[in-house]
Amino acid sequence: MNRSTLIRVIRERKNFLCVGLDPDIDRMPVHVKTGENPIFEFNKAIIDATRDHCVAYKPNTAFYECHGSQGWDALEQTVKYIGKDHLIIADAKRGDIGNTSRKYAQTFFETLDCDAITVAPYMGSDSVQPFIEFPDKWVIILALTSNLGASDFQFTEGLEGMMLYERVLKTTSQWGSPDNLMYVVGATRPEMFLRTREIVPDHFLLVPGVGAQGGKLEEVCQYGMNSDVGLLINASRSILYASDGTDYAKAAGAEARRMSLEMKSILQKKNVL
Amino acid sequence: MNRSTLIRVIRERKNFLCVGLDPDIDRMPVHVKTGENPIFEFNKAIIDATRDHCVAYKPNTAFYECHGSQGWDALEQTVKYIGKDHLIIADAKRGDIGNTSRKYAQTFFETLDCDAITVAPYMGSDSVQPFIEFPDKWVIILALTSNLGASDFQFTEGLEGMMLYERVLKTTSQWGSPDNLMYVVGATRPEMFLRTREIVPDHFLLVPGVGAQGGKLEEVCQYGMNSDVGLLINASRSILYASDGTDYAKAAGAEARRMSLEMKSILQKKNVL
Repeated sequence: MNRSTLIRVIRERKNFLCVGLDPDIDRMPVHVKTGENPIFEFNKAIIDATRDHCVAYKPNTAFYECHGSQGWDALEQTVKYIGKDHLIIADAKRGDIGNTSRKYAQTFFETLDCDAITVAPYMGSDSVQPFIEFPDKWVIILALTSNLGASDFQFTEGLEGMMLYERVLKTTSQWGSPDNLMYVVGATRPEMFLRTREIVPDHFLLVPGVGAQGGKLEEVCQYGMNSDVGLLINASRSILYASDGTDYAKAAGAEARRMSLEMKSILQKKNVL
Repeated sequence: MNRSTLIRVIRERKNFLCVGLDPDIDRMPVHVKTGENPIFEFNKAIIDATRDHCVAYKPNTAFYECHGSQGWDALEQTVKYIGKDHLIIADAKRGDIGNTSRKYAQTFFETLDCDAITVAPYMGSDSVQPFIEFPDKWVIILALTSNLGASDFQFTEGLEGMMLYERVLKTTSQWGSPDNLMYVVGATRPEMFLRTREIVPDHFLLVPGVGAQGGKLEEVCQYGMNSDVGLLINASRSILYASDGTDYAKAAGAEARRMSLEMKSILQKKNVL
């Protein structure tokens, strides 16, 4: 899904919600986790219930890998089941020397046919370039993450008073364009969207941290939205585990709908629709 | 394998070689890659040929994941086949928010039962802590990588004139001890081992970049070795693809032996044995 299609889909569905698919077997209702293929069955029900209320899905590879090869099968089934009407982001946070990053790019862009992958910037340009080289795919670089530990290095001040996350935005934005690069910017520090938008006014930002981690949607939009919307707000646990009973999918659908309606109202208020 | 066992094994085998298991199907001899389970069969022959000449193996997850669930099966088979006489490092370069890092830790320390995993530091303490919490396991943090792109951020100067890789060493060494933390420090910049050893005198360093990437063993040992040896020198391509013919395993064994003898001679010269 390229940039113009993504923007069209956001305008049509009137939301910019990304549902994070972090299927944690310990948090699934008993009748699901005792089934034959619990990861996929859980995801399938969640996807059916949320499909109309979101524009993207973000499976987090950790929750599949921990089940070994069965987990990878479930990840493949999940990506196929989502289909082509949603942007599919592999939340993999990979990044290695060139020949290895190339293999990761093949894994997620060819074997799995995802649209996008999250990538860690620490190893620099030649660790990111093999992902960028894939036509019609997206690289989503970690800039400012939503966790507490973000302050350990991402806020480290360097030359010209620039923090590391600012340097990452500035440097890496030269490696691609708003057509194939996005950034992870966490919702837990909404005031930093101002600075982010000074450096990358046009790029889409993938925003974790709304919901379970405490970020506020209204604030993120106030500082982070641009005229193409430019935001994908991710919610994982607050949707997936909205209920721990047999009605979990229904509750997930209701929570996704609630978030998408909140987004619709913001889009209308800002005259972006 | 804990620290004292690792040091004992190094002294007994008189080398500190880590063989990187990056099985690239495109570089395998025809008779192997057309087999039923080429990744594992290739690794098996390499392990048989190199087992006596190394102390560690480092499977690189990218080369398994790109084959989907079959690749993960091959990774599991490989780890089992290596057994308990070598340190097994999952070269995975993971790192995410706490609940996700915990899943990755389960994947590599429980599901696969590796001894160690490489982790990217960008997301900070709570992304690394879940790995450190596993008893009798190792976390190997990326400090100074061997690729060209390392200069993009790792050499960025910050407060007190400290480069990012120095800050990573200094900060993260507070999160664990030389008993459960190692660092990736690339062989391609041997002079930086001096500075590394000022900050982390006692930690083991996993050193990529000798061989295919051009780093020199003698120089790395000159600046990086401590009284417990403190180095694991990794070689992947120079061993795995020493020959592209039917004698590939024999050639791999010969190259591993050559490197281990070079190490033995250095250990003797330095009176470390």
